[in-house]
Amino acid sequence: MLYLIGLGLSYKSDITVRGLEAIKKCSRVYLEHYTSILMAASLEELEAYYGKEIILADRELVETGSKQILSDADKEDVAFLVVGDPFGATTHTDLVLRAKREGVPVEIIHNASVMNAVGACGLQLYTFGQTVSMVFFTENWRPDSWYDKIWENRKIGLHTLVLLDIKVKEQSIENMARGRLIYEPPRYMSISQCCEQLLEIEEKRGTKAYTADTPVVAISRLGSSSQSFKSGTISELANYDSGEPLHSLVILGRQCHELELEYLLEFTDDRDKFVKDAMNDQEYFKPAAWLPPTEVNDDE
Amino acid sequence: MLYLIGLGLSYKSDITVRGLEAIKKCSRVYLEHYTSILMAASLEELEAYYGKEIILADRELVETGSKQILSDADKEDVAFLVVGDPFGATTHTDLVLRAKREGVPVEIIHNASVMNAVGACGLQLYTFGQTVSMVFFTENWRPDSWYDKIWENRKIGLHTLVLLDIKVKEQSIENMARGRLIYEPPRYMSISQCCEQLLEIEEKRGTKAYTADTPVVAISRLGSSSQSFKSGTISELANYDSGEPLHSLVILGRQCHELELEYLLEFTDDRDKFVKDAMNDQEYFKPAAWLPPTEVNDDE
Repeated sequence: MLYLIGLGLSYKSDITVRGLEAIKKCSRVYLEHYTSILMAASLEELEAYYGKEIILADRELVETGSKQILSDADKEDVAFLVVGDPFGATTHTDLVLRAKREGVPVEIIHNASVMNAVGACGLQLYTFGQTVSMVFFTENWRPDSWYDKIWENRKIGLHTLVLLDIKVKEQSIENMARGRLIYEPPRYMSISQCCEQLLEIEEKRGTKAYTADTPVVAISRLGSSSQSFKSGTISELANYDSGEPLHSLVILGRQCHELELEYLLEFTDDRDKFVKDAMNDQEYFKPAAWLPPTEVNDDE
Repeated sequence: MLYLIGLGLSYKSDITVRGLEAIKKCSRVYLEHYTSILMAASLEELEAYYGKEIILADRELVETGSKQILSDADKEDVAFLVVGDPFGATTHTDLVLRAKREGVPVEIIHNASVMNAVGACGLQLYTFGQTVSMVFFTENWRPDSWYDKIWENRKIGLHTLVLLDIKVKEQSIENMARGRLIYEPPRYMSISQCCEQLLEIEEKRGTKAYTADTPVVAISRLGSSSQSFKSGTISELANYDSGEPLHSLVILGRQCHELELEYLLEFTDDRDKFVKDAMNDQEYFKPAAWLPPTEVNDDE
């Protein structure tokens, strides 16, 4: 059996009881190690907690080395651990498909992921639109296809979850060229950098998918003991020190009820200003007011 | 401390290790009991598993009896258990706000909910739009505001998660009028009933937010050992026997990649037909083809 097991967001004990019981039965335990990190537990702590050695699975191993992962999984139990949920931000449907084709039974053990735990900021999950990813801009590569998605969401009043880039096991161009397996220290995008990139692209596009005064909520270290939220405008949060990773950002849509707004006020510096900013922003994408049909003059 | 603890989707052991440890410390344990059910565990099994008595919290208790839930929670530990995640389909932000106002510290222990575990059907969570709820139609009450939301999602290519109605602790009009606290047996909407209601409203509206041939995926008993998926068109699934509850439905949007479609083919009766249906449906909401700008004639 191949078990795909979600580890949840932060603590080693965020795994489900069922997930932990499954790991204990497994002869090999892989940990997917390129899209996210578990915030409050090191590899050694996890190994001690499970009583198992853990094999780190980087992108290469998962995408091209699935033979190794699936080897003998028809006869013994193998665990593939994923921070969050196995079908969260990065889905592992390809691994499941390959397992099925090789006759390996698969069991999924779900857990919380940022995709649902983001509800902790107080906004209804019902009214989120498509999710976008914000990557680190470089001098020559400043992709902005997410801009249109935010705009599409906001036109119909929906919130947008923005996932911030994580660079793990990254090589410098020089080291890559020389074939040296030396990796740069991991990098995690901060809220302020994300907001700066939002502002840069809005300035470039100029079509007001959002403005510097659009309200957003910063979500830092979701599910950990130092979890924190901050609500403000994009320009305000471009100067916010969000502290240690991981971070996500939610750009508010028009569909924000009074109780949701009240909840967000707990996380802002200036409550009156935030309410005003939210009202102004909602006004912008408000559907046109209903007008009585113009009387048709038959004489014309 | 007030602990809001997600129980996950199905088994008693779907609770996280951290959640279980928290319950063991609590002097009172409430279970929210009106928006969902845990599929594979009875109340007695849960009580034995936790070693605690459970107080069932119906809508009335949660919405008006929060005083009782929060009583002494500043001095002792109280658990409020929610099937899925505490901020899933029904959020408990109001309880958190009231706790904060009374100076009661709150800790959230997240878990999987349908809002993220739905990714198990193979569709990327990134490309889901707003979620809608389908309620049981009665003779005089056939609400259809969800129709516009599906349409909005599909115009920008997004999938729609449809949550199917659950009626727990429902009184007949006669019993209610006579003040008799006799409740009807619980009712759970089936996939076929949901599809019939979809077809009825499309026929009434006639604006083709979707058609009888639009592809959908039925998700039954998500996260349980009898979990099953079925892909087909709305009219095909109007005749599908989805078995025991709980069920959800996903209406496909245009943003469906090859690998996602391939995954859905595992769940359909006729692979070629499903691919054809999906292609035809995607064609309908395809953005208009790019046309070169018409040449401006300066002489005009």
